[in-house]
Amino acid sequence: VVKSEIDTAEEVVLAARPSGAPKERDFEFRKVAMPEPGHGQVLVRVLYLSLDPYMRGRMSEAKSYAPPVKIGSAMGGGAVGEVVRSNHKRFSPGDIVIGDMGWRSHAAVPAAALRRVDESQGPISYAVSVLGMPGMTAYFGLLEVGQPKAGDTVLVSAASGAVGSLVGQIAKIGGSRVVGTVGTPEKAAYCRDELGFDDVIDYRDCGDLDAALSKACPGGIDVYFENVGGPTGDAAMRHLALRARVVVCGFIAEYNLTESYVGPSHLRHILVNRASVHGILVTDWLDRWPGAIARMAAWLKSGHISFKEDTINGLEAAPAGLIGLLEGKNFGKVLVKVAER
Amino acid sequence: VVKSEIDTAEEVVLAARPSGAPKERDFEFRKVAMPEPGHGQVLVRVLYLSLDPYMRGRMSEAKSYAPPVKIGSAMGGGAVGEVVRSNHKRFSPGDIVIGDMGWRSHAAVPAAALRRVDESQGPISYAVSVLGMPGMTAYFGLLEVGQPKAGDTVLVSAASGAVGSLVGQIAKIGGSRVVGTVGTPEKAAYCRDELGFDDVIDYRDCGDLDAALSKACPGGIDVYFENVGGPTGDAAMRHLALRARVVVCGFIAEYNLTESYVGPSHLRHILVNRASVHGILVTDWLDRWPGAIARMAAWLKSGHISFKEDTINGLEAAPAGLIGLLEGKNFGKVLVKVAER
Repeated sequence: VVKSEIDTAEEVVLAARPSGAPKERDFEFRKVAMPEPGHGQVLVRVLYLSLDPYMRGRMSEAKSYAPPVKIGSAMGGGAVGEVVRSNHKRFSPGDIVIGDMGWRSHAAVPAAALRRVDESQGPISYAVSVLGMPGMTAYFGLLEVGQPKAGDTVLVSAASGAVGSLVGQIAKIGGSRVVGTVGTPEKAAYCRDELGFDDVIDYRDCGDLDAALSKACPGGIDVYFENVGGPTGDAAMRHLALRARVVVCGFIAEYNLTESYVGPSHLRHILVNRASVHGILVTDWLDRWPGAIARMAAWLKSGHISFKEDTINGLEAAPAGLIGLLEGKNFGKVLVKVAER
Repeated sequence: VVKSEIDTAEEVVLAARPSGAPKERDFEFRKVAMPEPGHGQVLVRVLYLSLDPYMRGRMSEAKSYAPPVKIGSAMGGGAVGEVVRSNHKRFSPGDIVIGDMGWRSHAAVPAAALRRVDESQGPISYAVSVLGMPGMTAYFGLLEVGQPKAGDTVLVSAASGAVGSLVGQIAKIGGSRVVGTVGTPEKAAYCRDELGFDDVIDYRDCGDLDAALSKACPGGIDVYFENVGGPTGDAAMRHLALRARVVVCGFIAEYNLTESYVGPSHLRHILVNRASVHGILVTDWLDRWPGAIARMAAWLKSGHISFKEDTINGLEAAPAGLIGLLEGKNFGKVLVKVAER
């Protein structure tokens, strides 16, 4: 039999809404009947699944971008896969595609929800990382909303992560001074030595975070790219420069809390610096992704940008991967390799 | 003797930096020698002094727009006065002028720091209220940063105050649905009955503020004009609509706290709504004040805007006036009538 003809598929469903940090028991791995692509649909065999911090939000009922995952339904998520059957003229077996396949080995997806991956731009996994959602988040969030100018100081939290590492490198290309915050010495060394950050703060090991920020950002922070929130975010707000721009991409330090994080008001810092704080959603720039992806691919080829993937093997390991990601145990963009090509 | 020839003046100086709410003893009223206008300076006899919430910030050493008032120095503040002597060709005795005269009966001010008051636009006190700094704050903060569209829901806190009452009325002119928060039933009735607000919430008497906001703003808040901060501001953030704009003008509920106000994080609400939060300073639009003042004067004449002044008599009463303002005891724009014209 060929791969496309096996009659069972696998998926990971949300078994329970977690309270606090998700546990393995909040997920269930199960075998299901192979999905049958309907009219205009395509059956995709998933190769790489992206794990991203936003997924924690979908596990809860709190208001977010999208409705929560239903209990007993497969977790959602962007993935790269290979077309195995197609009921649409745009796709043929063997095509490499990207879309929201969810935490599944196989998915039947409407053709309109899939995009073909241009393999000349890089490894296919890049379609869900540097040349996909996280990459576009960094690109548009920094350039469109943060709008760093040459000489500006850009601070990015979770600086070695998928989005943070790209934010810092893109800011460097534009001539900014770039400072990152990370949670381990290894991540700090990576940002400084491999990504070319001007300075890095290990928030777990720096002593007084305000003193570290004063030292690393003596003229204040012109652009703060917020990925973590919590006390790191609070401290960053205390060091804003005049007319600072804060890009709110995420706040991973708060995702697993059972009650809202409580911290000092940011209003004074926003007011006296005439700063602005902006929530972003990467799909707001969807029509401009192709040009940005091409630019990012060029930077990868020219060596202006490097990118680190942290790959987990097997769909069954996805829950542990997400749990670790939320604890900062990953090092780079977390991907699940679901199957060999 | 004519008024300009008396040889003593009066002023109120900062005697001590207050901890928490300012007390009368933090100020000192004193007689001083009549100021002598130097080269290019003008001696002004103050008629109306404006009291504004921002003055609390100047009494502390925390970072703000401007350096703090020095202990032993006169409090600063915008005032309207009459020229009594002039060493500059632009001004003559009898001219009515506006500038930062401070908490003084008489001030020697560089001509460049004064602006002539156009008495055809309204009572001269308007030059430090609806046709001055507070009016311009409402005008530019709302229209330039809040950018309400017809049909938008605009929430303004401290809604019966100098800035808040104008924000609400300007938003009504533009076709927004306007909701205010206030702290007394009288202020609520004023906003509803005299200013034409669509709904008003008395935060001290509404029970659950979230329930009141849900009822008053069923489609969420498109523009929140923040004057108070604290729990009211936190609640407003929980009711933002998609792409909401928050204009941070002040946070009077937090000014008298000895430590930073601590409250729930706003990041989730900013992110999921792709909202933006902006600190403003009215002098950033200084070059455009004349046109805005003319427009506001026209609205006053046409009856589209009404304005309430809360006038205190005598410079000596200024400290009590500011103390009361910070506690919300005023009703309308607080002015000190320092002298008869």
